[in-house]
Amino acid sequence: MTRASLPPIAVSLGDPAGIGPEVIAKCWDCRGDFGLPPFVAIGDGRSIANVWDGPIEIVDNPREAEAAFDFGLPLIQLSAAENDLPGHPSVAGAHASLDALELAVGLARSGSAAAVVTGPVAKEQLYSIGFQHPGQTEFVAERCGVAPGNVVMMLAGPTLRTVPVTTHLPLSAVPQALSAGLIESRGRATLRGLQRNFGIVEPRLAVSGLNPHSGEGGDLGREEIEMIAPAIAALAAEGWRVSGPYPADTMFHGRARANYDAALCMYHDQALIPIKALHFEEAVNVTLGLPIVRTAPDHGTAFDIAGQDCADPRPLAAAIRMACENAVLRAESA
Amino acid sequence: MTRASLPPIAVSLGDPAGIGPEVIAKCWDCRGDFGLPPFVAIGDGRSIANVWDGPIEIVDNPREAEAAFDFGLPLIQLSAAENDLPGHPSVAGAHASLDALELAVGLARSGSAAAVVTGPVAKEQLYSIGFQHPGQTEFVAERCGVAPGNVVMMLAGPTLRTVPVTTHLPLSAVPQALSAGLIESRGRATLRGLQRNFGIVEPRLAVSGLNPHSGEGGDLGREEIEMIAPAIAALAAEGWRVSGPYPADTMFHGRARANYDAALCMYHDQALIPIKALHFEEAVNVTLGLPIVRTAPDHGTAFDIAGQDCADPRPLAAAIRMACENAVLRAESA
Repeated sequence: MTRASLPPIAVSLGDPAGIGPEVIAKCWDCRGDFGLPPFVAIGDGRSIANVWDGPIEIVDNPREAEAAFDFGLPLIQLSAAENDLPGHPSVAGAHASLDALELAVGLARSGSAAAVVTGPVAKEQLYSIGFQHPGQTEFVAERCGVAPGNVVMMLAGPTLRTVPVTTHLPLSAVPQALSAGLIESRGRATLRGLQRNFGIVEPRLAVSGLNPHSGEGGDLGREEIEMIAPAIAALAAEGWRVSGPYPADTMFHGRARANYDAALCMYHDQALIPIKALHFEEAVNVTLGLPIVRTAPDHGTAFDIAGQDCADPRPLAAAIRMACENAVLRAESA
Repeated sequence: MTRASLPPIAVSLGDPAGIGPEVIAKCWDCRGDFGLPPFVAIGDGRSIANVWDGPIEIVDNPREAEAAFDFGLPLIQLSAAENDLPGHPSVAGAHASLDALELAVGLARSGSAAAVVTGPVAKEQLYSIGFQHPGQTEFVAERCGVAPGNVVMMLAGPTLRTVPVTTHLPLSAVPQALSAGLIESRGRATLRGLQRNFGIVEPRLAVSGLNPHSGEGGDLGREEIEMIAPAIAALAAEGWRVSGPYPADTMFHGRARANYDAALCMYHDQALIPIKALHFEEAVNVTLGLPIVRTAPDHGTAFDIAGQDCADPRPLAAAIRMACENAVLRAESA
């Protein structure tokens, strides 16, 4: 299986007033330097034309996009009710971003697209039009018929992959939210995802502690003893290669990273601080546990810099590349 | 003011059964490559001879060490009651490590040594002989007549300096331990330390949030609003250059780091994960707020690898270099 036998990647534009349209145009401009496979943008072409003078090739489906890719940025046009200017989000723009997401996921579900990459959306705007999910990830999970608790957010860069067990919670709520069962299920989903999306036959998972020095034998907290070690033991009993709990501060230097394929972390910043410190421009958000491949650049709409031609396209390029790599590996093992 | 006009650096060996003796010997071996100024080891020479065949020059004081430095590792000999073998700590070794620490601090206090660098000790062993301090830092503070609450632990590497507001607490105890007053006083001590130890006239301090996304306007926690922002405002009102609170996950990439001289972090791992991910071999523990310069390599006794000739001397070398740089800068501004 190679890339050539797969259809293009579907990329939803995200909020039309954010940096999504700009970075996808820049990705097409630099497709050679970035080593990008064919992809098709999905959304309102006016939001791209607002910030980019390059050629847009309107297409009806991803297969047409493949042929058009050499001549312009292929776009499946979804006209929005308004032409949102960069930096000025609107309710119409939120609808447009949701329509694009819905179509992109549908194309990946049907096999018309090899994978879906989702551009950044404005959650506040989405909530105002009745969007009921915490974020795009949960929406994608629902459209794929997967319970939100069974999908896992991974941050992946060239030398590190991390998965937070808990995500968008106040730090004070993290200890109560953790349990051996949750750590175990997130660990299992991560291990399966490493097999399925990354082609690693016997993946190695390193599990962090929650407390400084991983609790120092119980003196600095007991979660390691009461929850984390039992979860590790349960996964190991199933035959998985799992180790820890490790002090989080010594897990992420070069030699330590060489010993595992992913780090399972207890909370948001424990997972995101190291990946962004090391791989800020290349960190990709990968959703594991779905029947399709879905990645996203790990940044937001950045309304404050939209339309200024200064948005960095490298995170989106990394997300497109990784979506393609994951799709090839999954197709090979299917 | 240059290095040459200052006396040597005093380096306490730490626990004689740990890697302290090995790494100080390796530092002397590689003093040229590491760019090290003259230093004098303080402790029992037998623990060095156990792991190293090189020349030891017994001296009575740091000034003698300067002349001897070209010919061998200068050592102020403090005979221990036992000759601890590597990896086998004892009560006698704990006494020896404490005696060495006490003398090293005394030499720095009197001006006979330019600064003190402390080797790694075994806290459990120290507690067993009646040591009452949480760690060496608090001991040094007391010997210098400074209240422990007025000294600050900084982790410093080539491109990042971080200071944790809270240190060795279970994660669940962190939110309650924080207050605007504590953040403010730690911030002020950090800013003064940047001036005094690092010669930065108008230091810039970036302050992290506690919660994911820095609390997202209160939705993910209110500590940013109730404690951290008021502390920042109070410091700014005194004329300091202080900014934040910033989401911790986006504070530590290269471009972000260029915008501040130190990051003030809310808890242990928030400060230590990024410094060790980026600068594992060169992270130095610097104690700010003392009348003397004190640094330490940011590793422990490593009894498990002691005596195997595989301990990495680079952290101690970085600590000695930084102690010298800090001492020169302090002498210049005195």
